[in-house]
Amino acid sequence: MSTITNAIAVPSPGAPLEQTTITRRDLRPNDVLIDIAYAGICHSDIHQAREDWGTAIFPMVPGHEIAGTVAAVGSEVTKYKVGDRVGVGCMVDSCGECEYCQAGTEQFCVKGNVQTYNGVGFDGENTYGGYSQQVVVKDSFVCGIPEGIGLDVAAPLLCAGITTYSPLRQWGAGPGKKVAVVGLGGLGHMAVKIAAAMGAEVTVLSQSLKKQEDGLKLGAKDYYATSDESTFQTLAGRFDLILNTVSADLPVDSYLSLLRVGGAMVNVGAPGTPLSYNAFSLIAGNKSLAGSMIGGIAETQEMLDFCAEHGIGAEIETISADQVNEAYERVTGSDVRYRFVIDTATIGA
Amino acid sequence: MSTITNAIAVPSPGAPLEQTTITRRDLRPNDVLIDIAYAGICHSDIHQAREDWGTAIFPMVPGHEIAGTVAAVGSEVTKYKVGDRVGVGCMVDSCGECEYCQAGTEQFCVKGNVQTYNGVGFDGENTYGGYSQQVVVKDSFVCGIPEGIGLDVAAPLLCAGITTYSPLRQWGAGPGKKVAVVGLGGLGHMAVKIAAAMGAEVTVLSQSLKKQEDGLKLGAKDYYATSDESTFQTLAGRFDLILNTVSADLPVDSYLSLLRVGGAMVNVGAPGTPLSYNAFSLIAGNKSLAGSMIGGIAETQEMLDFCAEHGIGAEIETISADQVNEAYERVTGSDVRYRFVIDTATIGA
Repeated sequence: MSTITNAIAVPSPGAPLEQTTITRRDLRPNDVLIDIAYAGICHSDIHQAREDWGTAIFPMVPGHEIAGTVAAVGSEVTKYKVGDRVGVGCMVDSCGECEYCQAGTEQFCVKGNVQTYNGVGFDGENTYGGYSQQVVVKDSFVCGIPEGIGLDVAAPLLCAGITTYSPLRQWGAGPGKKVAVVGLGGLGHMAVKIAAAMGAEVTVLSQSLKKQEDGLKLGAKDYYATSDESTFQTLAGRFDLILNTVSADLPVDSYLSLLRVGGAMVNVGAPGTPLSYNAFSLIAGNKSLAGSMIGGIAETQEMLDFCAEHGIGAEIETISADQVNEAYERVTGSDVRYRFVIDTATIGA
Repeated sequence: MSTITNAIAVPSPGAPLEQTTITRRDLRPNDVLIDIAYAGICHSDIHQAREDWGTAIFPMVPGHEIAGTVAAVGSEVTKYKVGDRVGVGCMVDSCGECEYCQAGTEQFCVKGNVQTYNGVGFDGENTYGGYSQQVVVKDSFVCGIPEGIGLDVAAPLLCAGITTYSPLRQWGAGPGKKVAVVGLGGLGHMAVKIAAAMGAEVTVLSQSLKKQEDGLKLGAKDYYATSDESTFQTLAGRFDLILNTVSADLPVDSYLSLLRVGGAMVNVGAPGTPLSYNAFSLIAGNKSLAGSMIGGIAETQEMLDFCAEHGIGAEIETISADQVNEAYERVTGSDVRYRFVIDTATIGA
């Protein structure tokens, strides 16, 4: 029996979001029906709603930072039971058989993973995301949210958390390591918290010192303005790892000069236009420029467990359904500290 | 007592090389006097002789691919004795105390290492390289050349060998790994031999198929022309590692598309002009773009031992002193298979 649920949808590219209802599929044997409590607003929701990244599917129900509780489970589900606290991130399915799926990196599934929204399932049905009151997801793409993290501050972990946790872990952030986080937004603020909890010495590199107090409170030891040219002299050769969370067109060579020998700059934010670098900036110091895309499901669970253990949640501003359009404008204007989370109980109210 | 030795020098920027004599310093307690047998001609010799890379020191005696035998040792030298087969590469000194020297990466010495030629020693004296019959080098910058490699084919290992060995080792070339080598020149041909000996499956990516037969003979399994657009479709997502040995302005995104998830493209060749890439090429596949600069002394010794164990030497064309200017022209015109080596016995003859 399919479920009708309240949702917030974008009817056509760039149109304002409006409240509506959508239908969720009948539970298959491996499905979990989730009562969504909170859904985070990720900047990529806005890019897709506005077709900044190419043709998208409309109507669109954005949202891939989902936290809630299990309302029902399919006949073969053993991993979760009704009442469990759970989360869903950017993916809801993948082939499960290719080498990348087998390696726990479903985001790189050879057949292509199924995105939580603006995607098409292997059944041919469009997917609709977390700006809604219920969602049905295959159990293997559902993560458990440990006790000790509120569902509201947990929701953004499912994208912003894993997107920063994965490269920090893969590139060795930890005790004795100096990590710079470029940009203190939705991703950046999570990166600061997580890298500090990993034991690294964290520095924020932001355009201005406007959010300096916040950055230090979140766990950074230092905070520098990149608009101040002397920053690049002061910090030359300092960092083992630079995590770039911004989508601006950065002077890559200048940032590479901040790395120690053997250091890496990892991009999770990316501008739409090409970046330019000098190969000598990499050669003279055995340095790396890398990219990282979210993380696999097992790693997402590891991240949630890590965050619970260290008392880490996102810094959020909770909004009601009728504030979503205004929130989109504020995200676009970088006016949020640091993530909007929709209280889904207010949808259809 | 200082030593006067025959040498080949560049008197002024871009001028033809000419034979001359130079003076080598008295042996200090830790010095080794080497009778040079062969000196390789590296493309960077030409760049420096022509001041392509900025102001250089003249007269210049190029040569940082040096192989010979020990003729005398200072009072405190225990590592080598007269008659030992030895080699010297790109560096002849470093501070020895900074963290990078301590870590065995003297090429990144914080004080700056002393280059074998076109450098200034910590004693304030200019350094002169291997196009000569004798050289005096601090023992800790002298490597042993194992029996089983001819000194002629060993000479190029001291730069071309370590420059390719180091990134292949650091980035995990080995059994089960697919490695592409871009360019089949002095560096590229060493990379093919070494990667194949490490157990990797090697593919050469060259502009044309002109050297295909050579490439396969050197150990490559496949050979593709990059001037053929279909190469990039055929090989999409294939390689764990791409070692770029050319200095041309490559379409970086196209090469990144040849990498598997988690793969890396490491540059040891570099154009003088900036390269351009799209950050999404790195993010969509957790890929890396890296650089690598020669290798430390311990790693150079490891490389020489590895090459001896696997019967690897450079493919060389031995020339006499009076052919050096012609050889420079041929290197510039990519007309060498694959390294010129000067028989230093012919200098001053």
